[in-house]
Amino acid sequence: MYRYKITFAYDGANFSGFQIQPHKRTVEQVLKNAVNKIAKHPDPPVSVIGSGRTDAGVHALNQVAHFDIPYQLSDEAMRKALNSLLPLDILVKKAERVDENFHARYSAHRKTYRYRVDQGDFVDPFKRNYTAHYKVPVDIEKMRLAAKDFIGEHDFTSFVASGSQAKSNVRTVEKITVNRDPAQNEVVFEFTGNGFLYNQIRIMVAFLLEVGSGQRPVSDVKRVLAAKDRTQARMTAPASGLYLVSVDYGDEAKND
Amino acid sequence: MYRYKITFAYDGANFSGFQIQPHKRTVEQVLKNAVNKIAKHPDPPVSVIGSGRTDAGVHALNQVAHFDIPYQLSDEAMRKALNSLLPLDILVKKAERVDENFHARYSAHRKTYRYRVDQGDFVDPFKRNYTAHYKVPVDIEKMRLAAKDFIGEHDFTSFVASGSQAKSNVRTVEKITVNRDPAQNEVVFEFTGNGFLYNQIRIMVAFLLEVGSGQRPVSDVKRVLAAKDRTQARMTAPASGLYLVSVDYGDEAKND
Repeated sequence: MYRYKITFAYDGANFSGFQIQPHKRTVEQVLKNAVNKIAKHPDPPVSVIGSGRTDAGVHALNQVAHFDIPYQLSDEAMRKALNSLLPLDILVKKAERVDENFHARYSAHRKTYRYRVDQGDFVDPFKRNYTAHYKVPVDIEKMRLAAKDFIGEHDFTSFVASGSQAKSNVRTVEKITVNRDPAQNEVVFEFTGNGFLYNQIRIMVAFLLEVGSGQRPVSDVKRVLAAKDRTQARMTAPASGLYLVSVDYGDEAKND
Repeated sequence: MYRYKITFAYDGANFSGFQIQPHKRTVEQVLKNAVNKIAKHPDPPVSVIGSGRTDAGVHALNQVAHFDIPYQLSDEAMRKALNSLLPLDILVKKAERVDENFHARYSAHRKTYRYRVDQGDFVDPFKRNYTAHYKVPVDIEKMRLAAKDFIGEHDFTSFVASGSQAKSNVRTVEKITVNRDPAQNEVVFEFTGNGFLYNQIRIMVAFLLEVGSGQRPVSDVKRVLAAKDRTQARMTAPASGLYLVSVDYGDEAKND
């Protein structure tokens, strides 16, 4: 068997998330169909292992997955074969032969996510699937200060969705940036960490927006982390603003 | 009866164009439903008259329409009422009481369209519905030179789709700009004129791209205009790159 790592982008708007579900259009299913066509429909079929799931409506600029097929293709032939079989809302940017020790999920060192918040007065028809909409003015400096308290290793029990099946809620957040993009009239967050819990970024974004708009004090991040109580962080920002930017395997310069 | 002019944007990706067709989701139908709800379902129903049609997949930044309703609302109340009833892929930017001489189609002096061409190596999943994709390098100066020959009053018979029902193919093109947008890796065309024939802009764009990529000489615009033969301009650029930017009624600064 030959193992391939693929790096790919998708517009999440028309997918019911990454993970296969019956009767739903998912990224994993669409990839699996293409890979099995290339592999000439082996039985059992080839599985596609992603670096992690994304929810319905969440986008990816550089998601990573791996799979094993029974014969070898050049990296470029694999990339082209996949793109010729995939719908236009997924694009394989890179395909690489890797050794069998590479695992898209277990080998990942860190991930970076971006979150885009449109500050226009109204929901822009062209951004409705690609940003969150939050028109209340926000103080960038306050959000940066509050974000500092998320950095480091913490128990994120207060910032995980109730559906999470993680054994531990302890994660390390390495970096958070908060910037205004004046050309787009957006606020853009970026989060890098060794892994994120279910809905963690969307809950942190909603929390930071509450700090930025003055509905919470900057000090609330510390207080709510310590509380270890999901009911303290009330809101979850919508899926539409979230992008998986890159998955770092410790072997490469960061993609974006 | 009270006449309102509305200025609105729409993402054309999920519409079967502007004009009402049975069993299709069209901009006109969606607007008509909202207006008749506000008008409390008069019999016969209120019609919504657009400045002109757009094809399936074509977008609008500032399309204009008018309609008459049996009672009066403030401009702001009308705008809000419409937006509260419309789906998120249409946004009413402005609603204004106008006198009964205003007609969205017949009062229009000129229209401006934009056409976006993405030059990336591959179809970007996030741009597939919002640009055309043309990766062949193009010479902007050659396209500007060729575009000059479209300016003025001409018989555009060579640049109209076969389905056109226009009585005359004579139109005046006032202005064409061709620019590179390096941040987006796009070429952006803008066309202003007193009216455009069915598919005229998409045929002109495809023609200019053939000039820009060296497949036709710059002098071909003159030759093909003179030929008055639709088979000479072979290609039509896709709907996804086209935006109605503004409709000018001679009474206002240009919107964009």
